[in-house]
Order: sequence, then structure tokens, then C-alpha cells
Amino acid sequence: MKERRIPKETIDRLPLYLRCLNKLIDRGEENISSENFSSRLNLNSAQVRKDLSYFGDFGTRGVGYKTEKLASEIRDILNLDKSWSMALVGVGNIGSALLTYRGFDQRVFEVEMAFDRNPDLIGEELNGVEIEDVNNLVDRVSEKNIRIGIVAVPAQAAQEISEKLVEGGVTGILNFAPTLLDIPDDVQLAQVDITKELEQLVYYLQK
Amino acid sequence: MKERRIPKETIDRLPLYLRCLNKLIDRGEENISSENFSSRLNLNSAQVRKDLSYFGDFGTRGVGYKTEKLASEIRDILNLDKSWSMALVGVGNIGSALLTYRGFDQRVFEVEMAFDRNPDLIGEELNGVEIEDVNNLVDRVSEKNIRIGIVAVPAQAAQEISEKLVEGGVTGILNFAPTLLDIPDDVQLAQVDITKELEQLVYYLQK
Repeated sequence: MKERRIPKETIDRLPLYLRCLNKLIDRGEENISSENFSSRLNLNSAQVRKDLSYFGDFGTRGVGYKTEKLASEIRDILNLDKSWSMALVGVGNIGSALLTYRGFDQRVFEVEMAFDRNPDLIGEELNGVEIEDVNNLVDRVSEKNIRIGIVAVPAQAAQEISEKLVEGGVTGILNFAPTLLDIPDDVQLAQVDITKELEQLVYYLQK
Repeated sequence: MKERRIPKETIDRLPLYLRCLNKLIDRGEENISSENFSSRLNLNSAQVRKDLSYFGDFGTRGVGYKTEKLASEIRDILNLDKSWSMALVGVGNIGSALLTYRGFDQRVFEVEMAFDRNPDLIGEELNGVEIEDVNNLVDRVSEKNIRIGIVAVPAQAAQEISEKLVEGGVTGILNFAPTLLDIPDDVQLAQVDITKELEQLVYYLQK
């Protein structure tokens, strides 16, 4: 099933389906229709059916999709059944918030290492993670076999830090710095861009 | 010019063009070609030319676009020439980080009010902003004529808070809570969804 080519737009929506399913499972709901998905997620139902068709036909006419089965299948496709260790670089405001963030599933995503260049922070512990010297980043990340790096340093340091992460063997970067990173094609990049979100938002507020 | 219908995909990219332009302006560069844009932003140059064609033809063959003029035009289109006051709800880890965040242009985006329900926080001041009681949210936001609300409360409180913000007159919401908000169609919603970004990222790491 994983061999099938799933379009990026569909992949991008899978976390939303999953969140919606988790909510329903918590409430004990066993089924969900594509119409229910589409109204909850604000997507058209043809799109929902098309998205879900990529990973087998779990839908039953009149009943819909089995919530547990679909959630498990999506987790499998997204690779969420293993645990991902992450290295955070930059323990400033955003970085500290991420170290103590409860928004993501800690069984799947765990900040295992943290780095900063500030001598006052190095050696301190935050949420059970010791803050290490950023000068040791490459070696330590490689030693611990970390695959995901979180860049939470100021914009002007972000490129250098991301290069060090890649040198240490990281293949996925989540960037919080408001800057464009130039990274190798085989490294995946996700960007959390607060300014961009705000700038897009206000465009629509003028109407 | 604002009357022209600009596709959402183009609007979504304007903040990236703007950031790129600001960088070049800082370095004293007066022109940029669409090829330069496309390599910096990892977009194809036909797409760049098409995007930029929506707001007048500033490009000159062989010279490209005037950086200052194009940046000013994009700011105008995005509505970034005025200042936007924002109300932050939830002064936890993420909320505190946002109150002291330096990533966005403070002349354009300013967190003017902050609310929490924790009595230990109410009355405290953070980065010059007094934290107020969330029970007064509707009245205070309406009084101050705030247009943008930032939701940084736990997921289970996010829906209620967003409804209060809308009741207070907010027309744009930036949501940091990992949950889907059900808000009126005439309210704009932007979502900063860290979990979603991570979940999308790890899909691509399995290869």
C-alpha cells in the first residue's frame, strides 16, 4: 500500500483526518462518513473520498469509515507508529516553549536533545533535557542518531545551524526561524512561519 | 489594482517574496530577476512571473524587478502599511514566547493585550503588556477595537475562546491550539500547527 504514489496534497491533509478521528475515538464513535469529515474539516466530500481512496477502501456505503481502523492506517502511512527523537537548537522563548510543549503526542515526538550557545543556559536542564553546547552539535546529534532537528535560533543563525544538523545526519528539519533555508534536496524541510501566517491573514482582513 | 482577483496560492506566496526582497534591500540590491526569485524560493520561474504579473508589470527584460518598488507594492497589497493590534489569549509557554517574539515586524504586528485565566498571571506584566482576566475578554477586546486574536490556550479551550474573540469583534484568528476551530465564514483563520508539520515531515523521512 505504501508503494502507491500518494499526492502531496493528500499527505498534507492526513494529519487533519487523524486528529478528527482521534477526537471521535475518544468519544467512542465507531464510524464516520465522508460527509462528516468534510463538514468538520471544511473540505468537499468528493475530495475526502478521493483522499481516503488512496489507502484502501475502508468505507461502507451508508456506514462510512471505521474510525479505529482508518486512524491506525493513517498512522501507519505517516510513520507515526515509531518514536521520533528530535534535537532542538536554540533555547530562547520559542525553543523553551517547544521543550515543554504538550501539543504533540510525546510517545511519537520527543525532544531528546537541546543546544544553545549561551553559556548561562548550557548545562541547565529543562523538562528533563540537558541543554548542551551548540559547538558539539554535529558530533552529539550523530552519536545519538537523531533524525529530526528543530531550528529555533534567530534568523541570521538558522542557515549555519541547519547545515550542522545535516552534517550530523539529520534528514528532516522543522524550522521556526523566519528565513528561507537552503538545504540539500534529500533533506525534508517543514516551516512554521508565524509572520507568514499573519501576513496572509491580514490580506483577507481588508475586505 | 486591489480590485483584481488574485488567487489564494499567489497571496500565500507574497510574504515569501517580501522576505526575500527585504533581505536584498538590506544588502543594497536594487534589482532582482524572476530567476533569482525562483532559485531563492525554490519555485519555477514561470510561476514567479505569473505571480508577479498580478500586481502590475514591474519587470524589465534583462534587469528584472525593482526591489524597493516591488516590496512596497506587496506590502500595500498585503495591508502591511498599517499597524495591527492583536490580543493574545493564553500566556502559557507558547503564549509567553509570542509576547516576547521578535520574529515579526513589531511596527506592523503588535500584541497589545494578553489574557489568561490563571489568577497568578492576571495583573502581571510581560514585555510591557499587562495580563488580564480572560473573563473580561469580550468587553476589553471590543473596547480596544482589536481585529486579530491569537489563540494559545490548550486544545479543549480553543473553541470557546475563539467564539469570545469573535463576539468581541475580532475578524482574524491565528490559532496555535492543535485543534480544528469552527468559526463563522466571515472570520479569517490561520493555523500554526506544529504537530501537523511534524507528522507531514516524518512521512517523507521513511523513504
